[in-house]
This record gives sequence, structure tokens and C-alpha cells, in this order.
Amino acid sequence: MRQEQHRLTVQTRGQGLVEITREITGWLAGQGPRDGLLTLFLRHTSASLMIQENADPDVQRDLETFFKRLAPEDPRLYRHTTEGTDDMPAHIKAALTQTQLAIPVAEGRLLLGTWQGIYLFEHRARPHSREIVLHLIGN
Amino acid sequence: MRQEQHRLTVQTRGQGLVEITREITGWLAGQGPRDGLLTLFLRHTSASLMIQENADPDVQRDLETFFKRLAPEDPRLYRHTTEGTDDMPAHIKAALTQTQLAIPVAEGRLLLGTWQGIYLFEHRARPHSREIVLHLIGN
Amino acid sequence: MRQEQHRLTVQTRGQGLVEITREITGWLAGQGPRDGLLTLFLRHTSASLMIQENADPDVQRDLETFFKRLAPEDPRLYRHTTEGTDDMPAHIKAALTQTQLAIPVAEGRLLLGTWQGIYLFEHRARPHSREIVLHLIGN
Repeated sequence: MRQEQHRLTVQTRGQGLVEITREITGWLAGQGPRDGLLTLFLRHTSASLMIQENADPDVQRDLETFFKRLAPEDPRLYRHTTEGTDDMPAHIKAALTQTQLAIPVAEGRLLLGTWQGIYLFEHRARPHSREIVLHLIGN
Repeated sequence: MRQEQHRLTVQTRGQGLVEITREITGWLAGQGPRDGLLTLFLRHTSASLMIQENADPDVQRDLETFFKRLAPEDPRLYRHTTEGTDDMPAHIKAALTQTQLAIPVAEGRLLLGTWQGIYLFEHRARPHSREIVLHLIGN
Repeated sequence: MRQEQHRLTVQTRGQGLVEITREITGWLAGQGPRDGLLTLFLRHTSASLMIQENADPDVQRDLETFFKRLAPEDPRLYRHTTEGTDDMPAHIKAALTQTQLAIPVAEGRLLLGTWQGIYLFEHRARPHSREIVLHLIGN
């Protein structure tokens, strides 16, 4: 049994889903363990991780719209407003989605379903540099 | 340290929670490792995994009603409507819940709390066959 | 490769976020494995785990307010009311957040981001004693 760790940096362009499946599988391809478990951990509280459909881009837009409606950028709703009207909604969206994901690996490949992609969901209005820790354990 | 992997198929009957605790513990009982970590990974984006109370069935019905109200099957709300009015709400419900769960194991048993059950939450109107990858690591 | 397990009990004071980062890092400091993965598993369905900003306490209050508005304590909305008007909203809030978290560890430290804290989110009105299973695997 072995383990590997890596830090992946993702540049975002403001609010929205960024697919990172290729970056993850690219790193995985070079690792020793072929069967095991890959954990992704996002080191931020105003963005999140999500596994979603990667076929129709409208799904991603509808998800963004849904979360925007659920946690509106209306400063009258929040106490925490000093970091901008998009900051508290960003924390709420992060709370409703994932900071961490674990995906089984077999024969060097992630066991994602046919239509599953891994996404970084940026909740802040402005572009950010986001760091994800990758942890792989297996044989 | 050892690891085991398995694929569990669950048939659903349309929208709603399906308890799968027994299927999981049944598989676990036959495995070598007695202490460790069990990870469940669902290979779909229009269903999800959930740990919830397994005592009063009304809890499950209230959860279903809550999520239906939160993500209504109203095509005017979404761009992605080609796969049916229940599809985009299904993706939203999946985004709000879990694609993956990890549960510690001790002496061959899941360390679930007294009232915790493991559920597959089907979000599509029609019955589906859903696949869950089980990954166990431990001694 | 080694693994360690521990049960942490947290006393809550009724609804709200309780930071438990120090309790977790305190336990971690005494363990053998220095690099690996720490999994936290909450053995309850009316409370949850959350990683959130630990800088401005207003963020925590806004989160509590948001979830209270999203799942109101209004018995007319639910079938499951026998355990009190706060019980079904508690299950809903638990479904929308996390029962389990996994965090990579390097050189004996959790790889949390600068502003990330680990919280237990109590959803019941009255104080409760909550149990979290800690599972560490690594070298």
C-alpha cells in the first residue's frame, strides 16, 4: 500500500463551474498506485467541488442560476458584508455543496460514471486562484 | 493493510429514498478487513447518497417533499429541459446532497449511529438501475 | 501504512455552529501517522459537519439564519412533528450539509486552508452530546 499527495492550482474567471476532470486524471496517470481511493480537498470556503453532468453545458448554467436564486447577492439579507455582496452568498453556496470528494480508482482510472465530470465551483464574482489537495492511497 | 472493491447495483422505483444499509453491511460481512474505512461512490448525477434517520418513514417523505419544493419541476425555470421536466431538478438535488460517503468500520461493523441508515435518493420520475462503487481499506 | 480510530464527544448548546478544529488537531498531534488522510464521521442525523470560514463570526450567524429560513420550524410544512417543531428542519439541514469530511494530513498537520475551520453544526434547539468518529490512515 502506498500514498501520494499533490497540490493542484486552478485559476477561475469569476462565478461558475470549471471542469477539472482532465487535470485530475492527468496527475493520476503518472502515479504508482493503480487501485485505490483518490480524495480531493479544496482549501477555500467561498468555492466548492462538485461532480456533475458534463454532457449539456446548460446543466451547468442552470445550476449556477439555481444557487444564485437560493442565496441572492442582497446585502440586506446578511450581516457579513464587508468583503463584498458576493462573499456571504459564496459561503452559503460552499456550505450547500462539497469541500471534499473521494473517488475510487481501478486500473489507474477514476471510476466516474459515463456522464460525470469533476468541477470546481467558483462562487466569488472576481477571478481567483484556488488550491486543491489530491491524496491517493492504494496499490 | 488491504483493500477491496465492489460494484453494487440498486433498482429504484422512481423518485424517493431507498434504504441500502442491508446491502452494504451484507457485502461488508464477507470481506477480509475488519477495521478501516468504507467509501461509497455513486456513478450518477441525477440521484444521490444520503445518511438519514431510519426510524420514522415520515422523515423520508418530508425530505422528498422539501427537495421537490426547493427544485420544482417547472420547465420555465430551466434551460436544460430536453431530457424531461424532472431531469434538471434531479441534477440540482444531486448537487445539494452527496455523490460519495465514507464510513469508518470497526470489528467488521459500520460505525453508524443508532438511527442512521444509508439511502440512495432517486431524483428521476422513472425507475432506474443505479451503480454504487464500494471501496474498503483497512486491516 | 497504519490506521488509528478515535471517538470524540462534543457538547452543544442548542442550534448553531461549534468550532472543533482544536479538538481534532489535538488528537492528531498524538498519533503515529504523519502523512495521510483523516476522516470525520458524525453519528447523528439532526446535526452535521461543515468546513467554513473561521475569521468573522458573522459568517456563522448568517449561515445559521440562512438555513433557518430555508427549512422553517413551521409544523404545517411537515408530517414528522412528534419529536418537536425543530426536528424535521434539523434532518433537512443535515441532508443539505455533511455527515462526513475527509482532510489530507502532511507532516502531522491538517491541510486546511488559512481561513478554514471545522465545525459541528447543531440543528436541534436543545443542547446535545454528539459523537464523531475520527479515522486516520497513513504513514
